[in-house]
Amino acid sequence: MSLNLQTYTEHFTNPLYLESGRILEPYDIVYETYGSLNEDKTNVIVICHALTGSHHAAGTYKDESKAGWWNGLTGPGKVIDTDKYFVICSNVIGSCFGSTGPMSTQHPHHEPYRYKFPVVSIKDMVKAQRILFDRLDIHRVEAIIGGSMGGMQALQFAIHYPNFAKKIIALATTHATQPWAIAFNKVAQEAILKDPDFQHGYYDPDLIKEQGLAGMAIGRMAGHISFLSPESMRQKFGREYKRTDGLYELFGKFQVESYLEYNGYNFTKWFDPLSYLYITKAINIYDLSRGFDSLSQALSKITADLHLISFQNDLLFKDFEMQEIANTMKQLRKTNHFYFNVESSYGHDAFLVELDKFDFYIKEVLNG
Amino acid sequence: MSLNLQTYTEHFTNPLYLESGRILEPYDIVYETYGSLNEDKTNVIVICHALTGSHHAAGTYKDESKAGWWNGLTGPGKVIDTDKYFVICSNVIGSCFGSTGPMSTQHPHHEPYRYKFPVVSIKDMVKAQRILFDRLDIHRVEAIIGGSMGGMQALQFAIHYPNFAKKIIALATTHATQPWAIAFNKVAQEAILKDPDFQHGYYDPDLIKEQGLAGMAIGRMAGHISFLSPESMRQKFGREYKRTDGLYELFGKFQVESYLEYNGYNFTKWFDPLSYLYITKAINIYDLSRGFDSLSQALSKITADLHLISFQNDLLFKDFEMQEIANTMKQLRKTNHFYFNVESSYGHDAFLVELDKFDFYIKEVLNG
Repeated sequence: MSLNLQTYTEHFTNPLYLESGRILEPYDIVYETYGSLNEDKTNVIVICHALTGSHHAAGTYKDESKAGWWNGLTGPGKVIDTDKYFVICSNVIGSCFGSTGPMSTQHPHHEPYRYKFPVVSIKDMVKAQRILFDRLDIHRVEAIIGGSMGGMQALQFAIHYPNFAKKIIALATTHATQPWAIAFNKVAQEAILKDPDFQHGYYDPDLIKEQGLAGMAIGRMAGHISFLSPESMRQKFGREYKRTDGLYELFGKFQVESYLEYNGYNFTKWFDPLSYLYITKAINIYDLSRGFDSLSQALSKITADLHLISFQNDLLFKDFEMQEIANTMKQLRKTNHFYFNVESSYGHDAFLVELDKFDFYIKEVLNG
Repeated sequence: MSLNLQTYTEHFTNPLYLESGRILEPYDIVYETYGSLNEDKTNVIVICHALTGSHHAAGTYKDESKAGWWNGLTGPGKVIDTDKYFVICSNVIGSCFGSTGPMSTQHPHHEPYRYKFPVVSIKDMVKAQRILFDRLDIHRVEAIIGGSMGGMQALQFAIHYPNFAKKIIALATTHATQPWAIAFNKVAQEAILKDPDFQHGYYDPDLIKEQGLAGMAIGRMAGHISFLSPESMRQKFGREYKRTDGLYELFGKFQVESYLEYNGYNFTKWFDPLSYLYITKAINIYDLSRGFDSLSQALSKITADLHLISFQNDLLFKDFEMQEIANTMKQLRKTNHFYFNVESSYGHDAFLVELDKFDFYIKEVLNG
């Protein structure tokens, strides 16, 4: 069968009530679907994307060579089998790929929100998705799956909409963002804010895409350190130089420097700096226990089967953070939770790269 | 007895031949001494400083409250006992505390070198010190001790001047800078270079000290991540907010953010951006095996007793890097090397902070 990739935009006129007390109104959500919804709507799987991800999780657009970010996992006959499941992935609010974000036009004005865009939280992102699914007349799904910020969303779904999903699979994430992850975000935020081309938020988005924004590139470089690990960096780059002629030993550029430069500056061509500020803020303030007395009280709401997958040597969300969720579930005498610590030296991005180290586990979970 | 802190500047008119093939001429080296040199000059200990350290290792200057960077270890009756030893610590060339660096006047012109300053290596820094000691008529010392970039210097001394020191003590360092450390430096270098106030190296140093240089502050923030560890950051900051009133849960500033801001921007008041570029370059290109066929061949030159002290959870120079030196020494059937992996969750800065975890070891080494 084919992937049956479809991209849609839904427009909402009812206000979205945010955690901050503010509202977002109106707003759009862009989403993608793969496979086909069965008649009794019992074959839905929701995929949630990470910080700079999008609704484009699988398949390849016409005239593009790069496939969706979880294409290796999602498609006909694959682990998230679109021959069997109807898969939905939506772009989070605050992002820059079509869902309403800081550079969207602020109705009824004709200018972008920029800083007038409200602070959104992971819980808000999830709420918006829940409203989208309501619109699609989908009220219960087989599973919600996501890594990194996508895992945060999966966990928020589990707590705030306990009857919505049968199974929750959260990868490479945490119950509350820890100071080292906040620190990496801080470097990026500060670098963006202090870049004069950012113009205090009043930049020209086309110009930034064309010329780059050094501050965001620098921040992204710091990010890339947190996505890898010493082991994978050693394997990938060692102390190799980009060129090996001339006085390279003293004056050359290391491959790791070249990698960071390329990825840093390339990033500014496809991501928006205000979205980066808003989404890293959402990640920083993410804490499952907010609104509850404790993490334990928050987790007690969960009724779905909870699958926690962490990666050894993940520098951004350390494996012990997922272990803490598992331990708390255990203390609650919950029996429907499972913890799998993947042996990996790759680092955080293993959830995007080393699919063969955990795809069998997800397959097993989905097949029950 | 008193510390007997003395600060001197030595001026050298002979050219310093650098690894790059270029020369530095003339140049100054500023250094500090503690204790008193005995008659037969057999009680000398050399301390080498780290990236942003200086010759001011111990004691407190008049009108200043902060003591030297290894004051806890160095002084009368302390582990590096100035009642017994004559301790010398010099500021490396390329730095900005009095020894010749990129903002020094380029003789015979009356302008600072800026980018015309030559690339210096750790080996060059050590060579300049060796020439200083020659001038002081000191030809053999009891020990050379240093952490981080100071440890790199100690190891270079051991290899290139094998008869100079009886004992080498290198802490929290490596045999060759690895890609993750280069990556952290890259973020800082890029942030400095892209800051318009840096003016492509033609900044006004007084203005930078006064107003700060955002790029260097941002780079330093990234540095601070590498100086700590997830464990110590959790303990130090957790998810605490700087203020705890109002809507802080959504809009507040985390303590870790405030810490990075303070330390980042404060740094620009006391360190020079060009020195930061040159010294991080020296660290990046540091590789003990340069000029040899292998690390093994380089280490085979060592005749001093070699003491390697690494710290568990050092993110910048991982403990296995020091272990690699020890393993190579073992393969060489050298018997005069010792490896001590300090149990610590603090991170890289443990060599500056958790003195009580290794001071007894240094004491033992010095007392033979």
